[in-house]
Amino acid sequence: MDERLDDLQVKGYRIYQDPEGFCFGTDAVLLAHFARIRPGERVVDLGTGSGIVPLLMAAHSRGEAFVGLELEHGAVDRARRSVKLNGLSGRIEIVEGDLKEAAALLGRGTFDVVVTNPPYRPLDGGELPAHPARRMARYETHCTLKDVLTAASGLLKYRGRFYMVHRCSRLAEILQEMRAAGLEPKAGRMVQKDAEAAGELVLLEGIKGAASGMEWLPVLFTRSGDGPSEALKRIYRGEDG
Amino acid sequence: MDERLDDLQVKGYRIYQDPEGFCFGTDAVLLAHFARIRPGERVVDLGTGSGIVPLLMAAHSRGEAFVGLELEHGAVDRARRSVKLNGLSGRIEIVEGDLKEAAALLGRGTFDVVVTNPPYRPLDGGELPAHPARRMARYETHCTLKDVLTAASGLLKYRGRFYMVHRCSRLAEILQEMRAAGLEPKAGRMVQKDAEAAGELVLLEGIKGAASGMEWLPVLFTRSGDGPSEALKRIYRGEDG
Repeated sequence: MDERLDDLQVKGYRIYQDPEGFCFGTDAVLLAHFARIRPGERVVDLGTGSGIVPLLMAAHSRGEAFVGLELEHGAVDRARRSVKLNGLSGRIEIVEGDLKEAAALLGRGTFDVVVTNPPYRPLDGGELPAHPARRMARYETHCTLKDVLTAASGLLKYRGRFYMVHRCSRLAEILQEMRAAGLEPKAGRMVQKDAEAAGELVLLEGIKGAASGMEWLPVLFTRSGDGPSEALKRIYRGEDG
Repeated sequence: MDERLDDLQVKGYRIYQDPEGFCFGTDAVLLAHFARIRPGERVVDLGTGSGIVPLLMAAHSRGEAFVGLELEHGAVDRARRSVKLNGLSGRIEIVEGDLKEAAALLGRGTFDVVVTNPPYRPLDGGELPAHPARRMARYETHCTLKDVLTAASGLLKYRGRFYMVHRCSRLAEILQEMRAAGLEPKAGRMVQKDAEAAGELVLLEGIKGAASGMEWLPVLFTRSGDGPSEALKRIYRGEDG
């Protein structure tokens, strides 16, 4: 199996990735940064893939325990080896399993925080990528948005916090489904390349059982000229974006 | 009655306003600019107040007929006199009435476009402004968000377009209620003062009977230093913002 060991540029952490499959992108870094993790909290990442999000959250927070749930066996194996390589076996656990059984696998109402970077694209009859791991990471072949939100709500304590990165093209559907799952949208942040670009991604915080009303943080621009924006560089360094 | 005659800075148009009541703000200008009105279209503004939105839309588009529906008698009178003063009696009609009876008053399914700058604040038990017109313009004393959306949906043709400006703090509720009323959210634009400010307003386009999926336009910054941004100045001039 072709494999790559990448430097995460934080605390010397490294991560195994399959260059033929799905490698983490800016989305995962934005999500890990957007999620506010308090000292001592228990956190789960639904569909953790290579484990990038728990690795970054462990590096940048004092959360006590991070669980990464992943269905694809190859990714589970790489994530477990990355956890061990970085000496994080005491804080991060990678669990192989289906998020549709998340509450049974991990315990109903036992988490302070759920994060997820789910597949963005519904199955709409268009052509799918040939590589199984890419297909699964990008398209809702194995779980729908609703499945992800139902799993998150089941895992969270009352008043627990949910963080998701998604495409803003689906915002109407996402906010409605979050409310239907009992995860009231409380904060959002639009992400666009630069001042002239259309909105691309949205970062969302939901709180289980909260009243309605959202705060929208200043839009995040990711590019400046040909390179990353200053805000994005700060986020990669784990500083305020 | 104290009254003020203000210059709209476009085509020499002027507008009567009650300085003790509710005077139009940037929100109305943003809404009139955001609404795409095609030549020959029939347009209605729900809760038109002083008639600012139809006046601006008449100035900046080739829409055929604009109706402004308003409940408050003083505003109806001022709006009618503004229409006459600007020689627009052939294109703008101000109708006195309750938007909860809009379809009966104006004809079900007869409009290409509905626009609205509704009251932003639900009745949450807080203190209300003493002035009746201000209270009515800012709080949902006479109509809820749902009433406005129901009225809009009733007035629109199939595939008709709905445009609204509102506070982004209510975005989750707004998008859900739009969908419930059959006005699928298709485009949005966040409005914030500058790059560091939180989101303040949101401009939304819904299309009656459309499939889901939204485009988010680049965020609109309204301030630059102590003055209006270049984008806002262009909008006031009726150019692309």
